[in-house]
Amino acid sequence: MKHFHAEAGDEAVPWHATAQRVAHALAQTAVARDQRGGTPKAERDLLRDSGLLMLSVPAEFCGLGASWRQTLDVVRGFARVDSSVAHLFAFHHLLLATTQLFAQRAQWQPWIEQTGAQRWFWGNALNPLDKSTRAEAVEGGYVFSGRKSFCSGASDSDMLLASALDANDRLLIGVVPTRRAGIAVLDDWDNMGQRQTDSGSVRFDRVPVATSELLLDPGPLSTPFACLRPLLAQLILANIYLGLGEGALEEAKAFTLQQGRPWLFSTAPAANEDPYVLTHYGDFWLALQGARLLLDQAAAAFDQAWLRGTSLDEQERGEVAIAVAAAKVASTRASLEVAHRMFEVTGARATTAALRLDRYWRNLRVHTLHDPVDYKVRELGDWALNARAPQPSFYS
Amino acid sequence: MKHFHAEAGDEAVPWHATAQRVAHALAQTAVARDQRGGTPKAERDLLRDSGLLMLSVPAEFCGLGASWRQTLDVVRGFARVDSSVAHLFAFHHLLLATTQLFAQRAQWQPWIEQTGAQRWFWGNALNPLDKSTRAEAVEGGYVFSGRKSFCSGASDSDMLLASALDANDRLLIGVVPTRRAGIAVLDDWDNMGQRQTDSGSVRFDRVPVATSELLLDPGPLSTPFACLRPLLAQLILANIYLGLGEGALEEAKAFTLQQGRPWLFSTAPAANEDPYVLTHYGDFWLALQGARLLLDQAAAAFDQAWLRGTSLDEQERGEVAIAVAAAKVASTRASLEVAHRMFEVTGARATTAALRLDRYWRNLRVHTLHDPVDYKVRELGDWALNARAPQPSFYS
Amino acid sequence: MKHFHAEAGDEAVPWHATAQRVAHALAQTAVARDQRGGTPKAERDLLRDSGLLMLSVPAEFCGLGASWRQTLDVVRGFARVDSSVAHLFAFHHLLLATTQLFAQRAQWQPWIEQTGAQRWFWGNALNPLDKSTRAEAVEGGYVFSGRKSFCSGASDSDMLLASALDANDRLLIGVVPTRRAGIAVLDDWDNMGQRQTDSGSVRFDRVPVATSELLLDPGPLSTPFACLRPLLAQLILANIYLGLGEGALEEAKAFTLQQGRPWLFSTAPAANEDPYVLTHYGDFWLALQGARLLLDQAAAAFDQAWLRGTSLDEQERGEVAIAVAAAKVASTRASLEVAHRMFEVTGARATTAALRLDRYWRNLRVHTLHDPVDYKVRELGDWALNARAPQPSFYS
Amino acid sequence: MKHFHAEAGDEAVPWHATAQRVAHALAQTAVARDQRGGTPKAERDLLRDSGLLMLSVPAEFCGLGASWRQTLDVVRGFARVDSSVAHLFAFHHLLLATTQLFAQRAQWQPWIEQTGAQRWFWGNALNPLDKSTRAEAVEGGYVFSGRKSFCSGASDSDMLLASALDANDRLLIGVVPTRRAGIAVLDDWDNMGQRQTDSGSVRFDRVPVATSELLLDPGPLSTPFACLRPLLAQLILANIYLGLGEGALEEAKAFTLQQGRPWLFSTAPAANEDPYVLTHYGDFWLALQGARLLLDQAAAAFDQAWLRGTSLDEQERGEVAIAVAAAKVASTRASLEVAHRMFEVTGARATTAALRLDRYWRNLRVHTLHDPVDYKVRELGDWALNARAPQPSFYS
Repeated sequence: MKHFHAEAGDEAVPWHATAQRVAHALAQTAVARDQRGGTPKAERDLLRDSGLLMLSVPAEFCGLGASWRQTLDVVRGFARVDSSVAHLFAFHHLLLATTQLFAQRAQWQPWIEQTGAQRWFWGNALNPLDKSTRAEAVEGGYVFSGRKSFCSGASDSDMLLASALDANDRLLIGVVPTRRAGIAVLDDWDNMGQRQTDSGSVRFDRVPVATSELLLDPGPLSTPFACLRPLLAQLILANIYLGLGEGALEEAKAFTLQQGRPWLFSTAPAANEDPYVLTHYGDFWLALQGARLLLDQAAAAFDQAWLRGTSLDEQERGEVAIAVAAAKVASTRASLEVAHRMFEVTGARATTAALRLDRYWRNLRVHTLHDPVDYKVRELGDWALNARAPQPSFYS
Repeated sequence: MKHFHAEAGDEAVPWHATAQRVAHALAQTAVARDQRGGTPKAERDLLRDSGLLMLSVPAEFCGLGASWRQTLDVVRGFARVDSSVAHLFAFHHLLLATTQLFAQRAQWQPWIEQTGAQRWFWGNALNPLDKSTRAEAVEGGYVFSGRKSFCSGASDSDMLLASALDANDRLLIGVVPTRRAGIAVLDDWDNMGQRQTDSGSVRFDRVPVATSELLLDPGPLSTPFACLRPLLAQLILANIYLGLGEGALEEAKAFTLQQGRPWLFSTAPAANEDPYVLTHYGDFWLALQGARLLLDQAAAAFDQAWLRGTSLDEQERGEVAIAVAAAKVASTRASLEVAHRMFEVTGARATTAALRLDRYWRNLRVHTLHDPVDYKVRELGDWALNARAPQPSFYS
Repeated sequence: MKHFHAEAGDEAVPWHATAQRVAHALAQTAVARDQRGGTPKAERDLLRDSGLLMLSVPAEFCGLGASWRQTLDVVRGFARVDSSVAHLFAFHHLLLATTQLFAQRAQWQPWIEQTGAQRWFWGNALNPLDKSTRAEAVEGGYVFSGRKSFCSGASDSDMLLASALDANDRLLIGVVPTRRAGIAVLDDWDNMGQRQTDSGSVRFDRVPVATSELLLDPGPLSTPFACLRPLLAQLILANIYLGLGEGALEEAKAFTLQQGRPWLFSTAPAANEDPYVLTHYGDFWLALQGARLLLDQAAAAFDQAWLRGTSLDEQERGEVAIAVAAAKVASTRASLEVAHRMFEVTGARATTAALRLDRYWRNLRVHTLHDPVDYKVRELGDWALNARAPQPSFYS
Repeated sequence: MKHFHAEAGDEAVPWHATAQRVAHALAQTAVARDQRGGTPKAERDLLRDSGLLMLSVPAEFCGLGASWRQTLDVVRGFARVDSSVAHLFAFHHLLLATTQLFAQRAQWQPWIEQTGAQRWFWGNALNPLDKSTRAEAVEGGYVFSGRKSFCSGASDSDMLLASALDANDRLLIGVVPTRRAGIAVLDDWDNMGQRQTDSGSVRFDRVPVATSELLLDPGPLSTPFACLRPLLAQLILANIYLGLGEGALEEAKAFTLQQGRPWLFSTAPAANEDPYVLTHYGDFWLALQGARLLLDQAAAAFDQAWLRGTSLDEQERGEVAIAVAAAKVASTRASLEVAHRMFEVTGARATTAALRLDRYWRNLRVHTLHDPVDYKVRELGDWALNARAPQPSFYS
């Protein structure tokens, strides 16, 4: 099975073979690792070694210089076979981008260069909905204390992006080495899906964060350009969802073609000629294809906005937000549908635990709850009816 | 939580407290047993001890004398908390019914009486789609050889209903003690759902089956009355599906009410007032309610047909078949939808592995593949358009 | 074509032949009258002559003594062939019921007896959302002035139920002869559907309404029993919707069977064997069947509540409200779906204007907007999640 | 209201103002003409005068030289306000293309040049499913006799593309002046939708068709390039569907914004803030947006294939066929959904006959029956599962 499907055009990119190799390696063990859960240490190291942790970084900082669309293509390719590792990989790039969006170059450039030099893997400890971590002002900065949930990729990370609220409930975001004293990454993630994302808790026990480590200028969601951050996060989610849907479709196809049997009352000579089986595949494919075009369009719009830099205005940012929201809703729906219904074209024998085909559904079901799709549709409606773009937030 | 919901009317039945007690016991350990898989030995023994294995048996044979509708109510109640044990319990009664439908009273009466006296739990080794078990004629009967898949409840069973094809490809069904020499019940069921149904394989190695143990008069699917067998099987499936949907809704409600939080952009003060949350609950409830009425109607029609006995004619049987098919399709769809979408009203925190809320979906997803819903809808269409009842088969 | 389908049980009712005859007559001209619009004078007189305007009236007042379920069966039967006349007929009975629910027997008995004696056809001028008609207190009563929209059945009516707001915005409902000076029934209804319901405007120009003509004791929506009024209205709507869906299905079937051709690439020998055609019919039938059971259950619950009279309590009324809401939503969805998709099983030739098959969709589309289905689903959700019955209103 | 929405890029095309002007004129009278039906003579002459009948014709033959994507953009723009005239206009171009695909340049060049010079409007009398027109071989050619149904645009046409079967059931296609003796264009189209497409019958009574008028080299569907013809037909349909959906959404928005009222129980201050209203608009917009991207992609693929000319191979044609099929299914579903549900965001007052808002649904419902969407989905399924492109036919 060709696990990492790349478009013709993509084969030209210099990192194509590397990405293929990683995807292939992930695919070999994804089923076993889904069962096991825990930290995918070997796969994280494989990514460190591959150089792909510098994929989205511009060449001038020793990165591979991929556009966001190209980066997201790799994310989607990984998600086809292993959506947990795809998530860790994508969030690493999101965190690098966050520093570029919320801070000045003088501040972020060293972090990014060190990321290349030291093969740092970044982890997340920024969760805007979780208000239990507080920042106490001290001389030279703050100390962070409290416990954060849903910290994807914190385990085995080298650097953390961590947030806390100051005395005025202002959100502060700091960049700190994971091994700093006072930081405890807890091994408490055991979930029905996305089992190797290590999205557990991080405890901060009076962790000093220097002012120079805080993303203050221009700060979180402070400008239209800074407000691209949640859009990149949403695009990542959408690409992971679509990758999961594509992976599910590939596995379903392989099963139908190799092991499918026409039902007792089917007039078709083989399962792959059955009229109802064909209808399901047509529906699956069309839903994914529509989502794919929306995603590609949104990624292109995002890249364009990214290149606009700080001259990006609210209106432009709003249009990207809508393209991203459309892609997010469509990929959520399409992939959930495929992962939910794929068994209707494989039949009962495909439910054996050995195949763990339910992992597509479990991974999607968990991951699509990141923020409610109902409210994303509402944003689209507000745009369609009232020509209002979404208010920027960490989720829109 | 009240795990076994009984209608007001049902509280009058003498076995009500017993069924409640069993359901309550099942609920205590269902999550842990879903994780573990394997044979639910303690729960099978609880059923043996409860007397409920004689639930559907007429009082004249020392049974509890429940109607099928009453029996199915208990099945549905069990399925709300443990669809694996519900399946084992229901198939036991299906196998008892099979002997009554395919054989003469003189033949089945002793088996049924022994079932009461010895607390036999029956298991299934009848799989009409699996043609690999053969019956070789010998003096006084046959010997069965081969391997059968999907033999739910064969493990820890006392009696088996086993099928084989003779030299002319005629289906023979025999009733044999599970411990008979040559029968090996394999412990090879490991599935993404219905994990404690032991639906693995049984190997027959020249197992003698006497003519007196074969259901030959009138034989399988030989008369309209005998053709009630697949309808009872379908009704059982439908009740298990609905029970799973009802159980999923109950758990979702408890989570929303106790732990739900309104989304960041919700105008509602609490999750249980959110307009979209209410819409989902309205849709869930309505779908289940519609399925419930269809199921109750089908069960009543089935009971009426059962009482008609051998005077039941094809037309009457056909109408029951349609009522059952309608209930089957509706409960499949309604419950799958609830189990698939319940997470949209609970949010991400409900996906922790500790709750194993995905088991409703996994159990339904697996079990609803028993036979394809597409072909069941086709049967309904043939009835609606062409006024043709389904051709009797082991699936219709 | 058998236009008025009656269940076996119904054939026993004394008015069965009459209802059949009326339905048959309506069916002969329904297509032409849908095109023409306007007042169905001949059909209204046919109803007057048939005696069916006394269908729901107890025998002690010289009525036919039908239960509400029986009355609604006739409404549904009419709606299969002519949903405009069904609406007029049903609202007549709703208005009779309104007097019984909002007033004391001493007040309503003479009206109802006169209805029988004089063959009165009642029309509607009660529209709680339209606040433009005002009641000015004068000696002995009030004068009503203003214009009311959506006054179904006012044209050619003998009696009107009319509402107005007094100086304190209290809703007053009066019963007045349509011919009373100052009342002008405008011929201004021209709509895409329900074209012969005369749901246009009525203008009141200082119309005197005596205190004895007002429904003051106990008054509108004043007690749980009085609050049955909106439930009867909703039940009527639901029965009309379902009748329209059933009528659409019947016409589609006739077309497929008589004129259908299998598509070029169908493997089926005839349209009625095509796998996709059968699927559509299966879906149509199942949706209608589910709605039917919900409707029958709701009608039975309503009859029971009606018989409880003023001893009905809030809790009981709430449970009926939920049964009615479920039936309303299910029939809305099922019938809209059939009327929308029926063309996919007939093909393009069924769209000729001569057949006017679009009238099912047009009638349903218009009528199902009476009050928004979204808010009805919300009511069901509030019940399912929060165990709260709908707040009584003219729409719930 | 801006009736002809053009993308920014399109404003650069030289015919933009002309197309806008025509669309604007169509919009003024579309409602009245939908009611009237019949031949839109003034609008056909407006098109003749506008020069747009030469839109798709290359500049070297005195055409406007639009690409197919550009031509289809104009079709879609017209369809937003008047899908009947859009159909006539689009089919004219399809017929011009048919001559280019089925014949050699020497044969079609004069016809196309005359079209420009004489402002010919072409009409359709090619219906591959209607086998009742026969071609009898005579010296110098054939005579056509018989009656054809669904001949869109034959009324008031100057030239006809007409088909007939020869003695061996071979399909012959001829190009003849509509006024040729023996041709009778019947005024027999009266349909629930697409009321001004004149899709009625044409009778051929021994109409002579010279060999030089027949499209024989390479002939119908004879090469991959010739097989682009049905794909252009399908693209036209899809653009008309999408235009109808877009038009419906525009009208719904205008109504909600200008006349919408929040429902009695809505917590929103205005209809355009109601959570359910916003959800509907979000769903509508997203569905149309997904279809739009699929359509644009398909049109681009078609243009590329068109430019390949006779060097186009089967595989390439197959890929275009799939892109077109995807666009067709998506636009069918999206637009039908919008036209069906738009009333749920406008409320009952939008159903007044004066607005004729039902025409979107009627037009779509009729036009989407051109060929069954079920079989189009099946084609997609065959591609997705079996990697088989559709067999070329007049519908795929």
